Amino acid sequence: MTSNSATGGGPGAIPAIGVGMVGYAFMGRAHSHAWRNVTAFFDPPLRPVLAALAGRSKERAEAAAASLGWAAVETDWRDLVARDDVQIVDICTPGDSHAEIAIAALEAGKHVLCEKPLANTVAEAAAMAEAAERAAARGVRSMVAFNYRRVPAIALARRLVAEGRLGELRHVRAQYLQDWIVDPEFPLVWRLQKDKAGSGALGDIGAHIIDTAQYITGRLITGVSAITETFVTERPLAEESAGLSAAAGTAAKGRVTVDDAALFIGRMEGGVLASFEATRFATGRKNGLRIEINGSLGSLAFDFEAMNELWFYDNTQPGAEAGFRRILVTEPDHPYAGAWWPPGHGLGYDHTFTHEVKDFLEAIAAGTDPAPSFADGLRVQKVLAAVERSAADGSRWTSVEEIEEDA
Amino acid sequence: MTSNSATGGGPGAIPAIGVGMVGYAFMGRAHSHAWRNVTAFFDPPLRPVLAALAGRSKERAEAAAASLGWAAVETDWRDLVARDDVQIVDICTPGDSHAEIAIAALEAGKHVLCEKPLANTVAEAAAMAEAAERAAARGVRSMVAFNYRRVPAIALARRLVAEGRLGELRHVRAQYLQDWIVDPEFPLVWRLQKDKAGSGALGDIGAHIIDTAQYITGRLITGVSAITETFVTERPLAEESAGLSAAAGTAAKGRVTVDDAALFIGRMEGGVLASFEATRFATGRKNGLRIEINGSLGSLAFDFEAMNELWFYDNTQPGAEAGFRRILVTEPDHPYAGAWWPPGHGLGYDHTFTHEVKDFLEAIAAGTDPAPSFADGLRVQKVLAAVERSAADGSRWTSVEEIEEDA
Amino acid sequence: MTSNSATGGGPGAIPAIGVGMVGYAFMGRAHSHAWRNVTAFFDPPLRPVLAALAGRSKERAEAAAASLGWAAVETDWRDLVARDDVQIVDICTPGDSHAEIAIAALEAGKHVLCEKPLANTVAEAAAMAEAAERAAARGVRSMVAFNYRRVPAIALARRLVAEGRLGELRHVRAQYLQDWIVDPEFPLVWRLQKDKAGSGALGDIGAHIIDTAQYITGRLITGVSAITETFVTERPLAEESAGLSAAAGTAAKGRVTVDDAALFIGRMEGGVLASFEATRFATGRKNGLRIEINGSLGSLAFDFEAMNELWFYDNTQPGAEAGFRRILVTEPDHPYAGAWWPPGHGLGYDHTFTHEVKDFLEAIAAGTDPAPSFADGLRVQKVLAAVERSAADGSRWTSVEEIEEDA
Amino acid sequence: MTSNSATGGGPGAIPAIGVGMVGYAFMGRAHSHAWRNVTAFFDPPLRPVLAALAGRSKERAEAAAASLGWAAVETDWRDLVARDDVQIVDICTPGDSHAEIAIAALEAGKHVLCEKPLANTVAEAAAMAEAAERAAARGVRSMVAFNYRRVPAIALARRLVAEGRLGELRHVRAQYLQDWIVDPEFPLVWRLQKDKAGSGALGDIGAHIIDTAQYITGRLITGVSAITETFVTERPLAEESAGLSAAAGTAAKGRVTVDDAALFIGRMEGGVLASFEATRFATGRKNGLRIEINGSLGSLAFDFEAMNELWFYDNTQPGAEAGFRRILVTEPDHPYAGAWWPPGHGLGYDHTFTHEVKDFLEAIAAGTDPAPSFADGLRVQKVLAAVERSAADGSRWTSVEEIEEDA
Repeated sequence: MTSNSATGGGPGAIPAIGVGMVGYAFMGRAHSHAWRNVTAFFDPPLRPVLAALAGRSKERAEAAAASLGWAAVETDWRDLVARDDVQIVDICTPGDSHAEIAIAALEAGKHVLCEKPLANTVAEAAAMAEAAERAAARGVRSMVAFNYRRVPAIALARRLVAEGRLGELRHVRAQYLQDWIVDPEFPLVWRLQKDKAGSGALGDIGAHIIDTAQYITGRLITGVSAITETFVTERPLAEESAGLSAAAGTAAKGRVTVDDAALFIGRMEGGVLASFEATRFATGRKNGLRIEINGSLGSLAFDFEAMNELWFYDNTQPGAEAGFRRILVTEPDHPYAGAWWPPGHGLGYDHTFTHEVKDFLEAIAAGTDPAPSFADGLRVQKVLAAVERSAADGSRWTSVEEIEEDA
Repeated sequence: MTSNSATGGGPGAIPAIGVGMVGYAFMGRAHSHAWRNVTAFFDPPLRPVLAALAGRSKERAEAAAASLGWAAVETDWRDLVARDDVQIVDICTPGDSHAEIAIAALEAGKHVLCEKPLANTVAEAAAMAEAAERAAARGVRSMVAFNYRRVPAIALARRLVAEGRLGELRHVRAQYLQDWIVDPEFPLVWRLQKDKAGSGALGDIGAHIIDTAQYITGRLITGVSAITETFVTERPLAEESAGLSAAAGTAAKGRVTVDDAALFIGRMEGGVLASFEATRFATGRKNGLRIEINGSLGSLAFDFEAMNELWFYDNTQPGAEAGFRRILVTEPDHPYAGAWWPPGHGLGYDHTFTHEVKDFLEAIAAGTDPAPSFADGLRVQKVLAAVERSAADGSRWTSVEEIEEDA
Repeated sequence: MTSNSATGGGPGAIPAIGVGMVGYAFMGRAHSHAWRNVTAFFDPPLRPVLAALAGRSKERAEAAAASLGWAAVETDWRDLVARDDVQIVDICTPGDSHAEIAIAALEAGKHVLCEKPLANTVAEAAAMAEAAERAAARGVRSMVAFNYRRVPAIALARRLVAEGRLGELRHVRAQYLQDWIVDPEFPLVWRLQKDKAGSGALGDIGAHIIDTAQYITGRLITGVSAITETFVTERPLAEESAGLSAAAGTAAKGRVTVDDAALFIGRMEGGVLASFEATRFATGRKNGLRIEINGSLGSLAFDFEAMNELWFYDNTQPGAEAGFRRILVTEPDHPYAGAWWPPGHGLGYDHTFTHEVKDFLEAIAAGTDPAPSFADGLRVQKVLAAVERSAADGSRWTSVEEIEEDA
Repeated sequence: MTSNSATGGGPGAIPAIGVGMVGYAFMGRAHSHAWRNVTAFFDPPLRPVLAALAGRSKERAEAAAASLGWAAVETDWRDLVARDDVQIVDICTPGDSHAEIAIAALEAGKHVLCEKPLANTVAEAAAMAEAAERAAARGVRSMVAFNYRRVPAIALARRLVAEGRLGELRHVRAQYLQDWIVDPEFPLVWRLQKDKAGSGALGDIGAHIIDTAQYITGRLITGVSAITETFVTERPLAEESAGLSAAAGTAAKGRVTVDDAALFIGRMEGGVLASFEATRFATGRKNGLRIEINGSLGSLAFDFEAMNELWFYDNTQPGAEAGFRRILVTEPDHPYAGAWWPPGHGLGYDHTFTHEVKDFLEAIAAGTDPAPSFADGLRVQKVLAAVERSAADGSRWTSVEEIEEDA
């Protein structure tokens, strides 16, 4: 006996909500995957419909839409924002366009999910946070896409800290180590250009460990002392940036205008000492987002390269039995994990985005503010600014409070 | 400017192929995910359309179809096989129904993807392999779903062996360790009943390490000496099996009719010594499919609990520099990995199924025989039978060749 | 103000006991180190005096004695046994001479520490065990040197099992993996000759995992099914074995008369399933004595290549927090560890021998039987014999009980 | 046939050299072990004789001498220095006495091995370095005991860097993590008192990672930006410090006058960015001396808690095969390792001291300057001073060059 699948919707059907996505590169693929799959594993109160994708090149946008499952394309993001069938605008572009798109979307009454870092400057981020606050008063939600918060192991880490299992926090040491530009012949892509990316390793991956450290501990970074460095100051122009000048055989070079690495030490609320390092020159480390936290009652350690594992040391156990234990974060009562596979059947990078949109949909339906908010994103932006200011000024101690909102 | 996404199909569009899936539990969810996402990451020559799902309960099948993305449901698998819009039949049911469904589908000219173990007996598996051979002559393809072959690290392991990097092979030691029935109060689910599951740990997870060992090394197991054991012989009746008798407060029990654990040592072609262990009583091991291979020139080690890592020891390096190296199998030139995310952004369990259907679609389009074939599945089934026979007969050496096809 | 160190002995001084050692190669160096250092870290009730060393070559024995700290040398072990200043005879020779020396020493009233395996045959081992029993009645002690029992992590493992922390034991999987003869040009040293070594990997390293498994679990192996193999059947004659015939340029070869690898599965008392593998062909594994134990309440894992670590899974913890924990076995309340350095300052291979002689000295002083006894050594020898018998007879199940004492 | 061991000395005997040790606590035990055993594993050109040990309490010194193997005791270090049978003075006392003893010994023509940190102030260290330079002109040698340089894995790391295997160095991240004073009730021992210890975690363990980083890379630290912290500012008086006031039941407390933790970022010669952290509050880390180094061609990682392992990433290998490899640093051609046991039979903490005295004896015999010299120790002391100055002055960038030698 045949019947049609309940994709339509009788009385009890889940309401649909239209999504429009701007940008379809790395982040766009990841977000699309999340929107496409969230209802197969979770039961969000809203069913996302992949309404339209915006990209400047019609041809490439259409190909992306076909591959990623979007129903339509727009070549101007303003048209996407204006669509009646779009209630959520998902911003997956480089940082220089975030503020303009996000503010316009919020003002148009669209919920906004925005990739990180929130913006390229504190001033932009502040304007966005303000717009988000105004929109929230009208029931319009916004969230910044620090997806690593949705790694089950990181969410579990936060839970353990919140439950007091680490006692009084003493130390955070966080690193985000990559190596994709170690080769000096790697070209000058947009992520190496300040006007597009805002900063280099600092904003791209440093932003993630700042957010992760603050998220897990529930403590804000209050001040920093920093150094930054650009190891390779000139690079071959990328095809995307070279234009006509990159004739065959020539090796036209351009200036790298962002940092290759940023190191800083700092203090967090509650007397926590912290050290941070973000670099694209850690040869052999591919996506080494690593964080360790030490408290009086216990410690945690995590490395994204083994993303299904959280290491926990419980100092309340007898010394003869204590040890860092490798928790495989795939159990039914672990954050997010129960929705997927049986224990030990690990998750991957893309699952974090599925969790992200699930949480966002829940917040929209519940009428609550999702986290991380644009205000959280602004706070991260201020830490980035403090790092840059300290590094530019002989590593002097720089309070995050001293960063002006028009910086 | 708006345009519709190219989901339709001008002259250059990818041809569609209809898929019908039987069963929608654990494996059904995993397969659905694969069919739904394969075109977003790979460019298979055929675009799968999730045409229909078959399940006995109309209500539950419809809910599953809505959640998993299937367009229609059937309550009888025969109707599914008969549908004009179904060209591939994907069998995700327990082993006792594999033979009947698969043979019917093949005879109806439908390509078949069948979950493992291929069948519950050698005789069934032999009939299926015969049907598959006949079908292949008519261009109808079949594949058994040993998904672990599609873990990038395992595919890379096979490549390294094939390239001669391990030299003369000496040892294989493989274990599949789980712990989900350690608690004697865990109920008597279908996987613990011989009539449904065929065997216990042996066929469920032992089959995987047999296939994985043979796949990586390219050598068949030729003989075994085995022991099996059922540690907990009676268990509470599961809701699914208890029926009316499981009144509140009573603890009706039923007999466990399969093995809890199976250990065997064996020989493989080319003088390789091998040891295997499959158990559901390895407390703390959640999905520990582990394999080590030693050869004269190198060694490999893998554990699915860290599925993005392959450990390789290269014995041709100077002794002072040699060591097992942890290859993060997420590089562009690793099997399957390049289609996904940048290096270090790991994959999860579900990705293996996406790879599986991608390879199956490619074989169908190319008119070649996909692997593992039903004949490969039959060979695994014979090893399982040899293990059972040896265990039943004082662990005596049992040649795989001596297993009759009507066993 | 100057004073002499209290090396002499007033009323409260620790009594001295003279040690005579037979053999001064690998094991002799390790034992000497232990005798020389035990009183600097422990407070044994007897202070060992390194009285004399026996070796056939006077010149080499004297050089060894000077280097290793022995006061005198003998060129005939009988003379060593006869010395009045020798109360302990420490046997560090190949297995073919153990029985003769040990029995003579015991009959002469000397305590005996004997390297493993206890002997090359069950018959020899049985004679030794009988001599040991007779000697014990006269207060003369004997111990077989399974030094791995004195790895703090292994002693801790035994303690955890004895305390019931693992619950009902289900599985043991033990491997001893080395790779020092992977190269077929490695010469035919005495360890590859049956007349000297008794067996190959089986007796040399297989004996260790048999003893370790029985020691940790407190359960005996009751039966086995085995395969053994010699991968490289001919090797260049070693300098030590070649004699005059090994003229420069010639590549005289001799036959390898022992196993290169031995695999067996078995049962232990109390329903435990076990698998064992001893091999010298596990390329890249240098001294991989590995053991895992699974019980209903917990599991343990150990690898000598990381000898200061014991991994423990406690199944009584909530699932969301459970994980294998890496216990650094260097805490004050860990076996042996408190006598050495602060936590985290690991121990090495040689420390196991220091622990061994400390325990032996304590047993002598206390008048108790040290463990492992010669009877324990005999039991291991019977397991080795059962393995060889099973391997020679088509892997048929072989009970350890069926091994005759005159085998 | 009996003969006496060649401990005396015919014409070819190894010359003896008398050692006198000041202090006999933790470091004294470690150094004694080294002097006692070095000739059993190495062939140093001088044979150390454990002539005398100095300690203020005659009774305790005599007990220590008996246990550790010293022939005599002195209750005043000046008498020890003056002994004719002492040619080497080994200083194992807290830092406040190093300068006085070392300078006196050097002026008396005795070779000096001095524990680290070299002194409690730069001024003292400078005076010692000056004395060492004067003494060297007279053939009198001095060495500071940074024993971690003699971990085989660390020496191998230096060798790989020196051979250019890491290419251009970019990053060093070093941590020394302990947790022994996490408990606020841990008493106020001398290491927590500035007058005795000079500083806290900084000088005790921070000094080790400063030396290790400079040793492996061959680059000096040129400037730093730092923060330090004392988490627990008052502690119960230790028995050793409490005196009569610590009556039973009272909980007299004293002020902690040193840092509990020190974090700093810095630059090293050649454009290397570095981060350092020394803490005694890293719960669960027992002796976690960890260092990672990234260069354009490769990377290294080390953790003393697994001291026999060095992790090496070789960026010249094809991407599909590259990975951090775990080198077990126990091979014959690894630094120091060949003198001990077969591959895979690891070493422990104490072996580093044996290597240290072996190198020292060789330098004395060869008439060369051993490393690390007192000048090296002074340089480390200046880095410590720069860290303290930066931390006291708002983390401002502090050049090591600006540290005056009278600081």
